[in-house]
Formats: sequence, C-alpha cells, structure tokens
Amino acid sequence: MIGLSSNVGVMESLKNPAEEQQPSSPLNSWSKKQESCKNHKQTLAGGFVLVHAGAGYHSESKAKEYKHVCKRACQRAVDRLKAGALAVEAVAAALVELEDSPFTNAGMGSNLNLSGEIECDASIMDGKTLHYGAVGAISGIKNPVLVANRLLNEAQKGKLSAGRIPPCFLVGRGAHDWAVSHGIPPCPSEKMATKFSLSAYKRNKRKMELAEKIDTGHNQTKKRRQSCENENGPGCLDTVGAVVVDLEGNVAAAVSSGGLAMKHPGRVGQAAHYGCGCWAENACNMNPYSTAVSTSGCGEHLIRTMLARECSAAMQSEDAHQALLEAMQNKFISSPFLAGEERVLGGVIVLRCCRCAEAPPSQNIQGILVEFLWSHTTESMCVGYMSAQDSKAKTHISRLPPGAVPGQCLAIEGGVCRLMSVAE
Amino acid sequence: MIGLSSNVGVMESLKNPAEEQQPSSPLNSWSKKQESCKNHKQTLAGGFVLVHAGAGYHSESKAKEYKHVCKRACQRAVDRLKAGALAVEAVAAALVELEDSPFTNAGMGSNLNLSGEIECDASIMDGKTLHYGAVGAISGIKNPVLVANRLLNEAQKGKLSAGRIPPCFLVGRGAHDWAVSHGIPPCPSEKMATKFSLSAYKRNKRKMELAEKIDTGHNQTKKRRQSCENENGPGCLDTVGAVVVDLEGNVAAAVSSGGLAMKHPGRVGQAAHYGCGCWAENACNMNPYSTAVSTSGCGEHLIRTMLARECSAAMQSEDAHQALLEAMQNKFISSPFLAGEERVLGGVIVLRCCRCAEAPPSQNIQGILVEFLWSHTTESMCVGYMSAQDSKAKTHISRLPPGAVPGQCLAIEGGVCRLMSVAE
Repeated sequence: MIGLSSNVGVMESLKNPAEEQQPSSPLNSWSKKQESCKNHKQTLAGGFVLVHAGAGYHSESKAKEYKHVCKRACQRAVDRLKAGALAVEAVAAALVELEDSPFTNAGMGSNLNLSGEIECDASIMDGKTLHYGAVGAISGIKNPVLVANRLLNEAQKGKLSAGRIPPCFLVGRGAHDWAVSHGIPPCPSEKMATKFSLSAYKRNKRKMELAEKIDTGHNQTKKRRQSCENENGPGCLDTVGAVVVDLEGNVAAAVSSGGLAMKHPGRVGQAAHYGCGCWAENACNMNPYSTAVSTSGCGEHLIRTMLARECSAAMQSEDAHQALLEAMQNKFISSPFLAGEERVLGGVIVLRCCRCAEAPPSQNIQGILVEFLWSHTTESMCVGYMSAQDSKAKTHISRLPPGAVPGQCLAIEGGVCRLMSVAE
Repeated sequence: MIGLSSNVGVMESLKNPAEEQQPSSPLNSWSKKQESCKNHKQTLAGGFVLVHAGAGYHSESKAKEYKHVCKRACQRAVDRLKAGALAVEAVAAALVELEDSPFTNAGMGSNLNLSGEIECDASIMDGKTLHYGAVGAISGIKNPVLVANRLLNEAQKGKLSAGRIPPCFLVGRGAHDWAVSHGIPPCPSEKMATKFSLSAYKRNKRKMELAEKIDTGHNQTKKRRQSCENENGPGCLDTVGAVVVDLEGNVAAAVSSGGLAMKHPGRVGQAAHYGCGCWAENACNMNPYSTAVSTSGCGEHLIRTMLARECSAAMQSEDAHQALLEAMQNKFISSPFLAGEERVLGGVIVLRCCRCAEAPPSQNIQGILVEFLWSHTTESMCVGYMSAQDSKAKTHISRLPPGAVPGQCLAIEGGVCRLMSVAE
C-alpha cells in the first residue's frame, strides 16, 4: 500500500448483533452504538469487509453452513487486504469464496433455469475509479465475478484496437467466450450443478406442471395472477455479495447470483444490472462519505427500484441508520415502482466511511470511521463481517421480528468500526 | 380514450429549429419560447411525439433519408394516438418504423459485431405503470422493441405459474426463443444485414487488422490506449428512440440499437440498460412533471452516467432548458464517472409535461403543456416531432456550432406545445 509502512487498526467493541439472542427489530438495534467508539485497542489491520449469503429464507438446519461460508469469504477478503490489495481486489476474493459454496445460489450450486441449465449474473464496482463490470446469463464459468472483474480491469486500460470502446457488460455465449479468451478456464455445466440444485429443479418442475394444469382453462390469466404468491421457497433468493473498504479509504462492492429458480433462459436479474445489484462510490467533493452497497432478493423488485444506487445515495445523510431505514421503507417497500406488488422482497448490506474526526492529532495517523449495516424484508438474511485485525469473522442470521410480514416489514441492524493506519 | 369523446388540440406556433439556417447554439435557441404560447389554433389531437435517429455524425448526403424515417416514425405514433392508443403503444409504433429503416443502426441494417452477426438491444418504459421491458444481444428478430414491449406487457399480467416472477430483461438466445414462443416471428439474420452494413463490416475489419498490426509489440497496452481516438465513423452511434405523451398525460419512452460496430458478441449497450437508454415517469405526488427521455451515443458513456434517469430527474426543476443544460454539463460531459474520458459522446431527447396553467376555466377542458428538447455532444443529432393535430412531422438535424469540439461541447434546442382535450 503506497505511503504506508505499517497499518495499525482500531476495532471498536461494537454492539454485536451476532451475540443477541433476540430477533432484530427495526428500531432499537442501532441504539448507542456511537458510544462504544470510545473503547478501542490497537492491532494490525488493512480494512474491513461485510458479506452476505443472501436475503431469503435460511432454515436453522442450514444456518451453520451459511455462516461458515460467510466466515471463509470474510477471511479471504481480509487476507487480500493484509497483502496490500485494494478494496476491489478484496471484494472479488470474497465473492469467489461465496460462489464456490454449493449452498449459495451463485456459481457452484446455482439454481437451474427452465431448461435445466445454470446461467449466472454477477457485477462488481470500484468506488475509486467508478468503473463497473458485469456479466449476465453466463454459463460454464465457475466464478462469474472473475469475468465481471476482468471486464472492469480491461475497461480501465482504455480503448481497443481501431478505437473500439471496451465493453462493461457481456451476456450469454459471448460472455463465456470472452472469459475463456482472457484466460478464465471454462467449467463443465454438469460440475456446477449440485445434488441439491438438481433435486430442487425436479421438485420445481413438478410443482410448475401441477400449477399449469390447475391454471388451464379460459380464466387462466386471472388465476395466473393469484396463484402461489408464497411459493418462493428456500434457495430462490439467496444470491451473494460483499462490500469492502481498504485502508486508503477506497470502497468496492460486488454481487453474484444464479437467479430465480426456473427462470426463463436468458433472464438477467439484478446482479448484472448497473445500479441495482451493487454500487460503490468513494467520497468526493459533493459526497462526504464513501459508500458501498450490495443487494439480494427478488431481482425484478431490486431492478425496478434501483435499490443499490438508491441506498448509496441515501447514505450521504447524517444518520446512516435512519437513512437506510427510510430508503428501505420509501424507495423499496412503498416504492411507486412496485405499486402493484403485495410483497417486496429484498435485502441490502451497506458500508459507509469517512475520515475519522476523533483520530489522534498526529499527522501520521489516519483514521477511517466505518459504519456497516444490513436490512431486509425477507424472512432472514445471512451476513458476516470482519476487520483486518480480527482473528476471525463474526456471522449472523438476521431474522424479521416474530409476527412481522415478509415483504411488508423490515429488519435493520449494524455496527461501527474504526480503522487506523500509520503513515511512514 | 376513456372519458374523452373528442380531442381538441392546441399547437403553439413554436420557434421551429428546423427552420433555422444557423447551427444550434447552447444558449440562445430557447429564448422567448414561452411567449409563443399565446397564439394557438384549435384542431383535433391526441398527443405528441419526439423521435431521434441517433446522436452521431449525419452526413449531408444521408440527411434526407434520416429526416424521412423520423417523419414516418412520428406519423406512425400519431396514427396510434389518434386511434386512442396510450403513450406506450404509440412509442412502440414509432420505434418499429425507426428499426425498419436500413439507414438507422437498429433492427434492419444494424451494425455487425466482431463475428459478423447482428445483435440488438432495445428497451421501453411506461411512465403510467412504471413497468419496463428490455432485450439485450438478441439476434434474428426484426423489431427488438416489440419483444421489449411484450415483456413489459407480460410482466403487468402478474406472476407466472408456481409463483414465478416474470422477467423484465432477457438476453441472447433465450430472448429470441421467448419472442418466438410469444408469437413474434423470427427473421433470418441475413435479411437484417444491408449492403451498407456488410461493406462497413469489411471496412472495419480491415481497419482493425491494420491497427492490431501496428499495435503488436511490447508496448501494446500504451499504444492501445492512444490509438485511433477519433475513429468512431458514421453508423457507429446512431441508435434510435422516441418519447411520447398522450392526451391523458401519460408518458412513455423507448430506445433501440444495433450497438457499436465490431463490438464483442454478447456486448450489451445502453439501449438495454435500465435507467440508461430510456426513462419515463408520470407526474406523482413528489414530481410535478411527467418526464420521458431517450438517449443515443456511446453506450458505455451513457451507461456509466445513467443518463436517461439523470435527465429525467433534472427535469423536475423549474426551467427545463437550464436543467437539461446543467445535466448534460455536470452529469455527462464533466461526470466523475467518466473522469478519464477525453470525449464524452451522446445525445438525449427529452419531453416533460404538466397540466396547463393557462387552460380555459371550463372544467371540461384539460390542457397539457409539453416542453420538448434535444441535446447532444456528438457532431449531430437527427430529430423529428409532431403533435396529433399536425399534418406532418417537423424534422431537424441539429449540429454543434462551428468550431465546437465533439465530446466536450454541446448543442441544446427545443420547443413548447400545448395539448388540449374536451371531456365528454
């Protein structure tokens, strides 16, 4: 890391939602977090990462697996940060781990589409350069996020031969071929499906055939509208994502998804939509805070509300918790873009940071105050977070309060962390 | 049209840029337009349409063809409006005409990609329902906008069998198959290429091979960045689009593109990016104006600045002309998202409307004040516009003022029109 000989980190003794036994509540889980900033110990550090393994429904039986993968993803990002990587490299590393898990709906073990194939979406954004890369409906690539990241990197190199502008978004067969021609190895599709995803496909296929049988008749359209409102079972929504800040204060965000189960071939969800799946913007003249967001949930809801960018913009308000609460209420649950929807399903992880006002007066020490949050309208959302001086990640499955209606209510939680670095 | 037995329209005697002999200038072409509102004649009407045949470079020799196709597209939309169609249907009709022209880079006669194939992008947005439909990298379909429109319509019908959420964005082979299964006829690819697009492909291929020969060497990356900055020739940027308001005050927008010449297969440009290619939002509690925007130009520039949505948001300011000027300057040419770009190439057509304050006091008469504008940083932009009471459309090729540098300067022009309807 340029200009830094050693990194000294300060981790706040946070209110840790993972230690709570009570389900999260929209209003009280943020209380007094700022006060905890006063007690801190100094250790080595290189940044902070927050990951999610999807907003959806996480059964107690699988909770352990989801937490494990989040833990490993945080560790991967922190390893990269400690090695001096920038935020965008660290966020890609976290995503690879999340995609490689057969339990998440991304990369390996993704949902199968209507034709029984796996087609993935992924995107990544670098808050420092504001560059963006995305792939949609890509098959036969184990880690779609690496293709998105490569697109981002290639675009930063400038124009192609004969003045052609490099692409930031590739889809389908073209995306696959581009990846392979850029050294990313293909992966046979049959290796990417898991026992679980195959059996889910068969189950969903039967369910669909049954539903279509019932629907057959002259009032099909009316029935179609009403049928099976609550059948988004497990595995339908749990895409993955991460947000990272490095010690230079750069932020990055990424997201990856196998998409909805039984989606039409060629369907592209929010994970490959600019402004919808992820967003990252370093602080600048107009924005005092650097912000990074990654989303999960019902793709079409997240697309039409452009949730990642909306949350990012909202986080420029003074109170991060209040800003996210209002964004989730007004720009998502009650969004005019989803006026006809009874249940609006999604979740976000958010990170914002600024130079630390409480830093010691020495000119050699730079402090970054990191506020991190998650919020969801789905039954549950699995998150993990870690700063580079932590020995291991904290993980948590956030759940809606008892009695709260998914798609109409939300949970919101978060914490604060202070990063410090000593300049040479 | 519900609640209207006859439609009476009032067209202002506008300052008509098409009648100007001087190239447009950023600051004086809007002057005193409001005053012209006072003189009007009453005729039958059903709304207003503004179309573009691309921001790019329109040679004098082809100007006639571009104007003709804009004229026909306006007529098509007006025919639909007169038949009682809503804005979204009329905008789709205009796009079909624009796509069908072999001169535009959309549908028939689209640019060929690196493999010599045609892959199109298109999207449509309905300001009334805020629904959106898009297709990306679709081959073998004569009118991609009709697939986007069908996606929009299908999504409005509600969920599919077994609670599956209908897609709003399909790409590649999947998009083609979905279209055909929904009754949109396939079109052999060889029928979509024209003599012009084929010869341009051969010319570009040679140019590329030559450029790559020059680039070969160990300093390839550096050369690549500098090479051929100005080689975006004719036909590279001229996508098409339209914005419409109907007599109910509903707005709609659409855009369609064959994409950059010699693009990588699977590359998706702004025409299929939510918020980038088109945007339409009816007035609501928070927004006094209905707005519709369609963009054209360098896809990656339009994507990363999310230009359609930015312009739409800007148009809620009081002075439409000033708002668009500032949006094009601050959110496009000087956008932090394009900090490394020497030349930022694009154009927009914009329409905004509100209930007419100057309408006669009768409760039966509703007036809609329509302000329409276009702005571009490219050499030229071809537009056409027409209200339903006009006998024919006005067309215009707007050009940058002499000496202005494309990608760094802009032209902006527009007009005002008042629509009036008599309720039953």
